[in-house]
Amino acid sequence: MPNVKHQKWWGWGEENVFFTWQNKPAFAPMVKRAIGIDLRPRQRDTVDFATAQVPETRISTEQLEILNGIVGADNAVTEDHTRVVHWAGKAVTDILKTLQNRFDRIPDVVVYPGSEDEVQALVDAAVELDLVLIPFGGGSSISRSLQPRPEEERTVVSVDLGRLNKVLEIDETSGLARIQAGVLGPDMEEQLNSRGWTLGHFPDSFNHSTLGGWAATRSSGMQSDKYGDIADIIRGMNVVRQGGLVTLRPLPSTSTGPSLREMFIGSEGRLGIITELWVQVHREAEQREVIAYMFPTWQQGLTAMRKIHEAEVHTTFARISDAHETEFSLATQKAPTSLKKTISAKGQDALWAVMRKRGWDTKAMCIAYVCYEGSKDDVARKKKTVAGIAKGQGALILGSGPGALYDQKKFDTPYLRDFLLEQGVIGDVSETAAPWSQLTTVHKNAYAAAQSAFEELGKTGWIMSHMSHSYHAGACLYFTFAFEISDNVDHEYALVKTRIQQSFIDSGATLSHHHGVGAEHSPWMEQDVSPAGADLMRGLFATADPGQNFNPGKILDSPDTLYRALGQDQPPAPGAQS
Amino acid sequence: MPNVKHQKWWGWGEENVFFTWQNKPAFAPMVKRAIGIDLRPRQRDTVDFATAQVPETRISTEQLEILNGIVGADNAVTEDHTRVVHWAGKAVTDILKTLQNRFDRIPDVVVYPGSEDEVQALVDAAVELDLVLIPFGGGSSISRSLQPRPEEERTVVSVDLGRLNKVLEIDETSGLARIQAGVLGPDMEEQLNSRGWTLGHFPDSFNHSTLGGWAATRSSGMQSDKYGDIADIIRGMNVVRQGGLVTLRPLPSTSTGPSLREMFIGSEGRLGIITELWVQVHREAEQREVIAYMFPTWQQGLTAMRKIHEAEVHTTFARISDAHETEFSLATQKAPTSLKKTISAKGQDALWAVMRKRGWDTKAMCIAYVCYEGSKDDVARKKKTVAGIAKGQGALILGSGPGALYDQKKFDTPYLRDFLLEQGVIGDVSETAAPWSQLTTVHKNAYAAAQSAFEELGKTGWIMSHMSHSYHAGACLYFTFAFEISDNVDHEYALVKTRIQQSFIDSGATLSHHHGVGAEHSPWMEQDVSPAGADLMRGLFATADPGQNFNPGKILDSPDTLYRALGQDQPPAPGAQS
Repeated sequence: MPNVKHQKWWGWGEENVFFTWQNKPAFAPMVKRAIGIDLRPRQRDTVDFATAQVPETRISTEQLEILNGIVGADNAVTEDHTRVVHWAGKAVTDILKTLQNRFDRIPDVVVYPGSEDEVQALVDAAVELDLVLIPFGGGSSISRSLQPRPEEERTVVSVDLGRLNKVLEIDETSGLARIQAGVLGPDMEEQLNSRGWTLGHFPDSFNHSTLGGWAATRSSGMQSDKYGDIADIIRGMNVVRQGGLVTLRPLPSTSTGPSLREMFIGSEGRLGIITELWVQVHREAEQREVIAYMFPTWQQGLTAMRKIHEAEVHTTFARISDAHETEFSLATQKAPTSLKKTISAKGQDALWAVMRKRGWDTKAMCIAYVCYEGSKDDVARKKKTVAGIAKGQGALILGSGPGALYDQKKFDTPYLRDFLLEQGVIGDVSETAAPWSQLTTVHKNAYAAAQSAFEELGKTGWIMSHMSHSYHAGACLYFTFAFEISDNVDHEYALVKTRIQQSFIDSGATLSHHHGVGAEHSPWMEQDVSPAGADLMRGLFATADPGQNFNPGKILDSPDTLYRALGQDQPPAPGAQS
Repeated sequence: MPNVKHQKWWGWGEENVFFTWQNKPAFAPMVKRAIGIDLRPRQRDTVDFATAQVPETRISTEQLEILNGIVGADNAVTEDHTRVVHWAGKAVTDILKTLQNRFDRIPDVVVYPGSEDEVQALVDAAVELDLVLIPFGGGSSISRSLQPRPEEERTVVSVDLGRLNKVLEIDETSGLARIQAGVLGPDMEEQLNSRGWTLGHFPDSFNHSTLGGWAATRSSGMQSDKYGDIADIIRGMNVVRQGGLVTLRPLPSTSTGPSLREMFIGSEGRLGIITELWVQVHREAEQREVIAYMFPTWQQGLTAMRKIHEAEVHTTFARISDAHETEFSLATQKAPTSLKKTISAKGQDALWAVMRKRGWDTKAMCIAYVCYEGSKDDVARKKKTVAGIAKGQGALILGSGPGALYDQKKFDTPYLRDFLLEQGVIGDVSETAAPWSQLTTVHKNAYAAAQSAFEELGKTGWIMSHMSHSYHAGACLYFTFAFEISDNVDHEYALVKTRIQQSFIDSGATLSHHHGVGAEHSPWMEQDVSPAGADLMRGLFATADPGQNFNPGKILDSPDTLYRALGQDQPPAPGAQS
């Protein structure tokens, strides 16, 4: 077995890492208020793999021998645990199905190529033997980019890039590094940091996702305001295709027609397998600081975020939670005195007193975090400009204590989802991006859409949101929703999720800012890029992969849509719901 | 005849605008030194269109009636002058051929659609009647993107977007504007400026190129360091295709699979006709200043430019001329005392004295211009940081006088080319981009390549360069070359130009940073994006345009390559020359 790290087979992340609420006194009451359930202590430490009922591999001896010949017998694995780890990503429905032994269709074999040449041989074999190849990085997709089509009759091969995990070279003059696609976030940063560099790309999935996965799904990290989306970061790449290796040399910019680089980015395995990338790297900043601000209302906070961008402050990130998420955030503080401690400069009681004195509705207030990097002078200057903007929108500056706390907690959220699932609660996310002028509408409509679904289901549901990733023309809104599930979970989940997704499109927002399309968001592609646009993309996939050997059914024309669970074939026409 | 502005039929720009050297005393001696010719006074004020021998239109009465039915008889023009204006762009070889009555194949009709619906009807008619459609903006292409294939047997329709010239709406909250594709730079800026906005996109062709043209050719303006390349500026667009209108709504960022936006950008008419764009617009900066710096050597200047970027100064542009271009720049000063006046703060004599005292080789010195925008404080701070970096590389700060001069002259250069042509001299350009670490090599090799061609031709030739458009990972190098031509000009031009282009590729640089591909650079596509990459793009074009009705022969597989003039079919293999 190759030495490649995997997430737990039954949930997110590593074994023995959990979300715990017992040390967070405000949490259980908040959950009770929000979704009407009484939290029980966590019981599920792990799940015995013996409980899994795993479909047998369908690979033939002949096919397996050919794959063995390419990657070596140790690196072509058919045993059940490995196949289950690779059967899907970590969408909440993936996890649910795994726990319920509902494996629609799982890979017949997992191969771990050790070189680009081996990947080329696998790609060529796939075409010749009519296999289905699905590239696999960290397995953190929550858009169902990794599952075989349920109806797939052919042999399915999961191609795990985990052995291709090296930083190959750094061009120190240009701030460019050549890195293999299969490297996990922390392993890559360790290799870069040891030479004084960083990629600056930190998606929430950072610990369990890979550079190649970020490329294939158009990832964006929480520091994208400074370091760019992955599409900005990638300057060149190698992609193995039938017919040969595509090599895009590292270039700062070029006018070579339609951008191949931008075709492979976001291609989710449909145009070939990404093996190497040239990416922009940066020296670690001299100074870094995260400051927290409390705004009296969402609208004032959003306005401040926009004005920070307009003022060209060049922050590393600037994010604001809406009132619900602020309430949630305060409820997950570890100990009763912890927040007080962290903002001891002002003192929590004093702060609350100030808010009351100002006539704030404490149910409406919104917490924001802004990150500054640069020289000492840069950081000071940027902080001063933002302080002016924030105060102009009525904010209180909470200082760096809560900011530091935010920085530490940032990768922990997905574990909460697994905990909730054990409690019979779905907690999931939908994120989008829209022009600044639309954000208030998008936010309002997503709330209304979720609420309408909760009501239809007769449930007390919860939704909360934050704004992150800002650009000249707009920003990302990230929603988290939760509700208690029943045996009819497929229908319940599909109803809530599709309502929220449709509200995005109907409000001028996109189906996803950085989670990709997969099967999950595929039904909205025609509404998002227009039917004629989807047709052109369909033509691209057909010409690139006439045999449908490369992750078919993702991005466009997915058979396993959420609408199946709703007994429908298609999403409604744009604007049909509202 | 529709009221659409066109350039002169026989050269660049407007009638009655000329380059003049008589008021520039250093110019003629410099030209004598550089390429060994004695300049004569300009004689050519205009060229009588009666001298043009224009091939007759091949359009049938039936076809013309159909087009008349779509755009109206006034807007479907077959008369000679209009067809000649639309037969090509303004590559030096285009102009030469026009003056020599060598019209390989010219459009049979020029149509001026007045709406997106009319464009759709034209596109549909093209497919039904098997016509060739070539979209036309300002006609400023110097990469031969606008000429029909010489062998084209079918009816060729030039689709001039000039009537679609309106700013349709401005989303003031988001800094986004919806603008029709056919608007010329100055007309667009006038409409934006009147409401307090600017696009910030100023390519050298600005006065005679359109927003749609910039999109279709991956343009980059001289202020791209701040405002972005056109690919960054465009956030959404409408593209008319067979099968319907592709609508990409304005989005700050999205993860909808392979980027359709980035496929249409740079597509040069091969994927359809761009009719509308959503673009980022900006408030005009509070303050703007251009400062000139003189560096003792090219290497020190280049290093300073890179360090400006590393220090995250966020300049609007930062460009440096090499020693040859600096010499040229000083030789085009209008009057003997003019430079002295403009840098009177220090005084030119004093400056020269300082340089001599420091032991500078005045033949090696390089002039740089850096543009700053922002608040008064921003500009002051940025200037201070750059001053430190520049001095660290031994530079003298010349102040804002020469900077202002640069800003005024920036759009005049193309007229010089027409003047030189009258003198029997080709003056032309090749530009590229590469990582910072490669720039010195690219520069050296382009010089050597040009020199090798000049020597082979037995000519005294000239080459000069500047660096502009910087990015995190590298920058654009822009070369201008000149030599006296003979009757064998096709061969001479092809030899010099192909040698320089090949040296780019062999040095890790791209075939073009912002001039596009057209027919001119198409032979290097396979070397630039790799053969497998070109294959995928070929597949995209084939699926998008199975009948080859949309500007065929551009970007890939152009029949009219420079290699024809050299009696070869293909460029050499990478690295074969050096």
